[in-house]
Amino acid sequence: MGTASSNTTKPAMRDSLIAAAFQLFLERGYEQTTVDDIVTLAGVGRRSFFRYFPSKEDVVFPDHEQCLADMTRFLAASADSDDPVVRVCDAARLVMRMYAENPTFSVQRYRLTREVAGLRTYELSVVWRYEKTLGDYLRTRWADRRDGTLRANVVAAAVVAAHNHALRHWLRSGGEGDALAEVDGALEFVRSTWTAGGQATEAPAEETEDVVVVITKRSTPMWRVVREVESSLGEG
Amino acid sequence: MGTASSNTTKPAMRDSLIAAAFQLFLERGYEQTTVDDIVTLAGVGRRSFFRYFPSKEDVVFPDHEQCLADMTRFLAASADSDDPVVRVCDAARLVMRMYAENPTFSVQRYRLTREVAGLRTYELSVVWRYEKTLGDYLRTRWADRRDGTLRANVVAAAVVAAHNHALRHWLRSGGEGDALAEVDGALEFVRSTWTAGGQATEAPAEETEDVVVVITKRSTPMWRVVREVESSLGEG
Repeated sequence: MGTASSNTTKPAMRDSLIAAAFQLFLERGYEQTTVDDIVTLAGVGRRSFFRYFPSKEDVVFPDHEQCLADMTRFLAASADSDDPVVRVCDAARLVMRMYAENPTFSVQRYRLTREVAGLRTYELSVVWRYEKTLGDYLRTRWADRRDGTLRANVVAAAVVAAHNHALRHWLRSGGEGDALAEVDGALEFVRSTWTAGGQATEAPAEETEDVVVVITKRSTPMWRVVREVESSLGEG
Repeated sequence: MGTASSNTTKPAMRDSLIAAAFQLFLERGYEQTTVDDIVTLAGVGRRSFFRYFPSKEDVVFPDHEQCLADMTRFLAASADSDDPVVRVCDAARLVMRMYAENPTFSVQRYRLTREVAGLRTYELSVVWRYEKTLGDYLRTRWADRRDGTLRANVVAAAVVAAHNHALRHWLRSGGEGDALAEVDGALEFVRSTWTAGGQATEAPAEETEDVVVVITKRSTPMWRVVREVESSLGEG
């Protein structure tokens, strides 16, 4: 394991560095562990560490680069008929899936991140990159809207907040429960906010029936409500 | 100016440290400026610098602590009759007001922040604290709601995103234009998202007229629409 560097052993070396790092972080604490300690335990040289991780912080979050790349590819593969809000919700699920693949590791990292201020800051910058990736996609999809950029920024932030709400809840519970069901529930709040009234999305091409929303006060006479509904329907 | 430390001269010393720091950041760059350079130009000792600013990064954002304290106080002074969403939008306006008070300084700092990765990270942690302050207030206001925490997190993130959208636009324009009008426009998108349909807010105590929302397909017969409206009204 120690010195080979063929393609087949690289992932194994990367994994052993991550395992060694977390063993030491948990035993001694993050600040008290050096890169030298990690490579000694993993039985590799310093250069091997930096081949995989730019810094000690990066070994704490080893899968985000891959996940960001997956998210970017997923969004780039969208069709024009995809509802943009539904699409970014699905993209956010990719992140939760990454966490859910390894609950023990995710919970260990969460506890570590709570204790080390530098790691929280690092995490904020990762979260920002996810938000930007979602926002870039939405800005493109809503380029023709007068409020497209504002809407894209707000919806991207809302999706990230809903995802992180579910993620934190799952991590705090020690990784028990169904992480993907939790994130689905949280994302549904965002999806229903911006798709239910038909305000946020263009009707998909294959849909022939529009949705009409009537907002009225209880005291409005019924004849006025009916006239309003008829008038709305008449525009179609 | 250099050695006095009475209460009346303290703000002046703090201001002169900020002015000296920004003069040097603009002349030499942020990374190339040391705290020693700043105190030499300001004519004070190192200890005076660290009395006001924990680190060099903090002198770049000298007003956020005060603004966070103002925001916390503003939210704590809320009445139960205040619409929670309107209230957090008003709280976000305090931040824009701080930026708008000194456009030249705000634009200089924005350009500096774009260039220095460490300052962007610092800024992300400041933004997170504003978001947390707004979220804490909303979580308290919506403590009785089943989805209160999720809703609070999502709305707080949306308010921050809308605020930052307007702020970035204003800063990119070089601080021209009406910053407060811009942020009002952006926040109105958030406010209307969560207050217009009556979905997000409980009706204020003094309001006697509820809002009913009817969602129907164009093909629905009118008698069914009327029955649905009557049935909804009958529940009141």
